[in-house]
Amino acid sequence: MTLIQLSEHKLFAGRQIKYQHHSDSVKGVMHFSVYLPPAAEKQKVPVLYWLSGLTCTDENFSVKAGAQRVAAELGIALVIPDTSPRGEHVADDAAYDLGQGAGFYVNATQEPWAAHYQMYHYISSELPALVEAHLPVSAAKAISGHSMGGHGALVIALREAGAYRSVSAFSPICQPSECDWGKKAFTAYLGKEQSQWLQYDASFLLAQKQNSLPMLIDQGEADQFYPSQLRTESLIEANQRSQSGAQIRLQAGYDHSYFFISSFIEEHLRFHARHLKG
Amino acid sequence: MTLIQLSEHKLFAGRQIKYQHHSDSVKGVMHFSVYLPPAAEKQKVPVLYWLSGLTCTDENFSVKAGAQRVAAELGIALVIPDTSPRGEHVADDAAYDLGQGAGFYVNATQEPWAAHYQMYHYISSELPALVEAHLPVSAAKAISGHSMGGHGALVIALREAGAYRSVSAFSPICQPSECDWGKKAFTAYLGKEQSQWLQYDASFLLAQKQNSLPMLIDQGEADQFYPSQLRTESLIEANQRSQSGAQIRLQAGYDHSYFFISSFIEEHLRFHARHLKG
Repeated sequence: MTLIQLSEHKLFAGRQIKYQHHSDSVKGVMHFSVYLPPAAEKQKVPVLYWLSGLTCTDENFSVKAGAQRVAAELGIALVIPDTSPRGEHVADDAAYDLGQGAGFYVNATQEPWAAHYQMYHYISSELPALVEAHLPVSAAKAISGHSMGGHGALVIALREAGAYRSVSAFSPICQPSECDWGKKAFTAYLGKEQSQWLQYDASFLLAQKQNSLPMLIDQGEADQFYPSQLRTESLIEANQRSQSGAQIRLQAGYDHSYFFISSFIEEHLRFHARHLKG
Repeated sequence: MTLIQLSEHKLFAGRQIKYQHHSDSVKGVMHFSVYLPPAAEKQKVPVLYWLSGLTCTDENFSVKAGAQRVAAELGIALVIPDTSPRGEHVADDAAYDLGQGAGFYVNATQEPWAAHYQMYHYISSELPALVEAHLPVSAAKAISGHSMGGHGALVIALREAGAYRSVSAFSPICQPSECDWGKKAFTAYLGKEQSQWLQYDASFLLAQKQNSLPMLIDQGEADQFYPSQLRTESLIEANQRSQSGAQIRLQAGYDHSYFFISSFIEEHLRFHARHLKG
């Protein structure tokens, strides 16, 4: 069996399911969670991929964001992958912002990371193929994420032209090439040559405007990582320079937590639904 | 300072706050979480108390249930206490269903529990007085809970005539005097004399009909603890015998998890709002 089902819970008349599978990309066992809305019992439904932030697994968004209520109403499936390869055989680091739980959605080229840390390929290629082959979903895809996962969602959507109908992010790391989190991770995974980093830098990619798609970003103004690690202003500038039309909103009083995500996830889902169903 | 604020997050335009305080009832430090809806900035709002189940703290409902979205809309505060006294000086047991995290909302009379395990008094008396003295809430109260907390909500509402406008429960332990969880806890906290247990048995209390108030109960039919530990049928029988008019609903396919709670919490909040605002 390609997909091994680990658990299932009825949720808003749909199904919250956790799967395990072998990944060729990361050469090991991966987990992900799925929410299938009631509509998926009768027809193929579009999918929103959600990429989580540092230290997270597929569980955080699944239990904290409150997204399934709206996904059930809109008839959208949610696919929620893990944030890195895992296991004793997988390279790791004692810090929370490198190694397991901190894959940064790149294809690592440096040792000891390159053997397993191929998260860009896993998320953008292997996982959608697996999901579309085995679950009742259509090829219509959108992507979103939080913090490191917001970075991942923006980078993947901007690079994979035509693959996603829309992209959104909460509190994304907008310019990893220029913040401490990004510099540390990219040096480890990609090496010291900074030209290699730009393919994973949403501000750089948006400024190039190699791809154009509907884009919605929310950033809390009381976020403890704003602006130093997140560098939202660099994305705002790239959006203006490239005239890409992204909605980038600053939300007064909100912080970096899932309480912020839960407050606005309904708006993000309705934004994606307009493009997924158009 | 009576209430020490440990954290605050903006959430659905309101405030999710965690407090610490000294409790006279349990003779030690207690924590609880509060959600204050936007309306509480301008006026006193009614309160729904939420009692959690075995192993929980104030965090579980705060992050998993998705209740704050509806509480914000309805203008209801949520108060979410811990499930027992805590700390090194507090008696405990290695099992998950006795001691810390498993207070069962009783006033213990047996050693070593009696010194601190006075959760009935804490929840029904000390905490509401504290909340009403220090937070922008009115005296209009409702109460709800899950599993052990559903038992607590039903027992407190049925015994404290006039104190609560309405009560609801998810997957409550309906007849603790006759299930393994309840017999173990009541023997430890209250002693072997079973006549002492009935004051904390919702099925017994409902059959007596000493108090009548609006009551809504949801029970998942795929719950792994149904019916053996929860004994919902005993509550259904007591409701019929006493003609109390409680709505007791069996929900096909749902289990004991917070996924079940999140699926129906909106209905429970709207049920309470009708009585809190009437």
